[in-house]
Amino acid sequence: MALTTLTLVPRACYCLPPSRFGGRRRRTRQVIKAELPSAEMGSGRPASKLMEFPHLTAAHRDLMVDLIQAVDDGVGEHLLPSTVPSDVEYYQNQTGTSQGTLLIRSAIPPSPIDFVIASWLHLKQPHGGAFNITNIASYLKTTNDIPHFQFELVQCSPTFLIFFLDLIPRVDIILRPDYLTTFYEETELEKYRRRLDAVPEVSPYFSSSLFFRKVVSSTGILVSMKCEESESGRVEEIIREEIGPISKEVLRIWMELCSNGGREIEDGNERSLLEKRDLMIKKKAIEMDLSKTMPLQFGEEVAERVLRVIRSSFKTI
Amino acid sequence: MALTTLTLVPRACYCLPPSRFGGRRRRTRQVIKAELPSAEMGSGRPASKLMEFPHLTAAHRDLMVDLIQAVDDGVGEHLLPSTVPSDVEYYQNQTGTSQGTLLIRSAIPPSPIDFVIASWLHLKQPHGGAFNITNIASYLKTTNDIPHFQFELVQCSPTFLIFFLDLIPRVDIILRPDYLTTFYEETELEKYRRRLDAVPEVSPYFSSSLFFRKVVSSTGILVSMKCEESESGRVEEIIREEIGPISKEVLRIWMELCSNGGREIEDGNERSLLEKRDLMIKKKAIEMDLSKTMPLQFGEEVAERVLRVIRSSFKTI
Repeated sequence: MALTTLTLVPRACYCLPPSRFGGRRRRTRQVIKAELPSAEMGSGRPASKLMEFPHLTAAHRDLMVDLIQAVDDGVGEHLLPSTVPSDVEYYQNQTGTSQGTLLIRSAIPPSPIDFVIASWLHLKQPHGGAFNITNIASYLKTTNDIPHFQFELVQCSPTFLIFFLDLIPRVDIILRPDYLTTFYEETELEKYRRRLDAVPEVSPYFSSSLFFRKVVSSTGILVSMKCEESESGRVEEIIREEIGPISKEVLRIWMELCSNGGREIEDGNERSLLEKRDLMIKKKAIEMDLSKTMPLQFGEEVAERVLRVIRSSFKTI
Repeated sequence: MALTTLTLVPRACYCLPPSRFGGRRRRTRQVIKAELPSAEMGSGRPASKLMEFPHLTAAHRDLMVDLIQAVDDGVGEHLLPSTVPSDVEYYQNQTGTSQGTLLIRSAIPPSPIDFVIASWLHLKQPHGGAFNITNIASYLKTTNDIPHFQFELVQCSPTFLIFFLDLIPRVDIILRPDYLTTFYEETELEKYRRRLDAVPEVSPYFSSSLFFRKVVSSTGILVSMKCEESESGRVEEIIREEIGPISKEVLRIWMELCSNGGREIEDGNERSLLEKRDLMIKKKAIEMDLSKTMPLQFGEEVAERVLRVIRSSFKTI
């Protein structure tokens, strides 16, 4: 999560946390919504509000619901229910103009997945309008080297989006070209990057973090989309016709890798290197973005509450 | 060198090799040209032909001469004369439609530099026109971790260029954010990438090699430039006003790092890792591009002759 946020979103705001995952497999979108008990969602917010992504456009909301459903269908059996406290699952600033949600589902011991984290954030901007940031990410256990999954879609205005979709490599590719072959060439991820690159409104996006640029894979999609002011419908179209199908395909590929279980890392040195890299990526995500911008956006108390939960899941404390 | 070539240039052609470096410091462009003894250049080619870059446009040629002069002024005292045999210093295919030059100057033992390699290539294309590829690169010794230097400018047509300029990191940045700080943040390299990115005709360029994409640094410049067919003068203007000054600045920064000598790597493990990474980058450069495309462009015999010299300098044999 944070990974991008800290990196994608202009300094004034910050990003993070999640949406609501369903529980059982093969449920329809309607069923998921109907099942959410409002008591469980906390903060006195009606449960449907969170799952409905109240501030998103229809295309963006539908995509989020579809992706969350797809995770549940694909690897739901790996995941335990979220244990995020209700006052972190939904939180807001004092005036209620900035709101955030966070959901973290740990995986069961035999799964290669460590946990899945999802969020949406609505951040009112000082000069009008709001940023809507949605994120789904999964970090893997250090017993395997399957890439981490990252999806983040940021609507900065009705006509401007930033989008990040990637399987994040967990080894130094220069020393491991076999890793590139297995996870990036054989999966043909490049074709999805190219497909989006061919959309006229899409441009490569350079994160302000030089560290983050090195985290992204060779086939990572990191783009901005700018449409004419009069054409907010075109943004919706791009989400429905390009970002949506591409995100679902990349998620499907990643879930397939997870279902295959990955290669067991038995060598102690290899595992400790992987642990170090994973930890560095997570630490940088928190340090560079969240720990600075969260207090500014939500106040010290709320920020500390949310960050404690994130740090604990990230095992950076 | 090859690094990019193999990666930048459409499969039909290939890249490599060099131009002519001067010998002493502070010489004017004219002096360099005048000093080149034709016997030394071999292949019966008049020496001036090589140093004049006969197939380049004026702006491109002037830039190459300036860069070579700058290398000579800045680190010329580190470098020994080239020992490349004359039939590799200049070579061509049977019909003479494709021509190449190669120059390699090893550095003296106390220098952090291992060697400097430079080249130009003129590759006639089957459907008319020619590609002109110019390259200056330097690889460092494994006693230090100063980034390698890479400059490559490819003129694919009078109105289409590909440009690569980078200080190539020699460690896994994820595990070494201090390396990012020292060589990329404190040197403010990002501002040069941004400056070129702001030129309307310039777009980010994605190499076809997923491996190569991971070799490039966070601030690496890898772009294409497309001008209107009627505006070949604009290409010249971009070379003179943007590519030229940016290349000279990045080269100056790199030479300053070399003049400071870098950090001595004493730890055996760190050094052996650096050696492995360096070797992998060089091997991939040869394997992915040169060893396949050289024979197609220049015939088996010439290719073998040139590749032997490159492999020997790269220490990949």
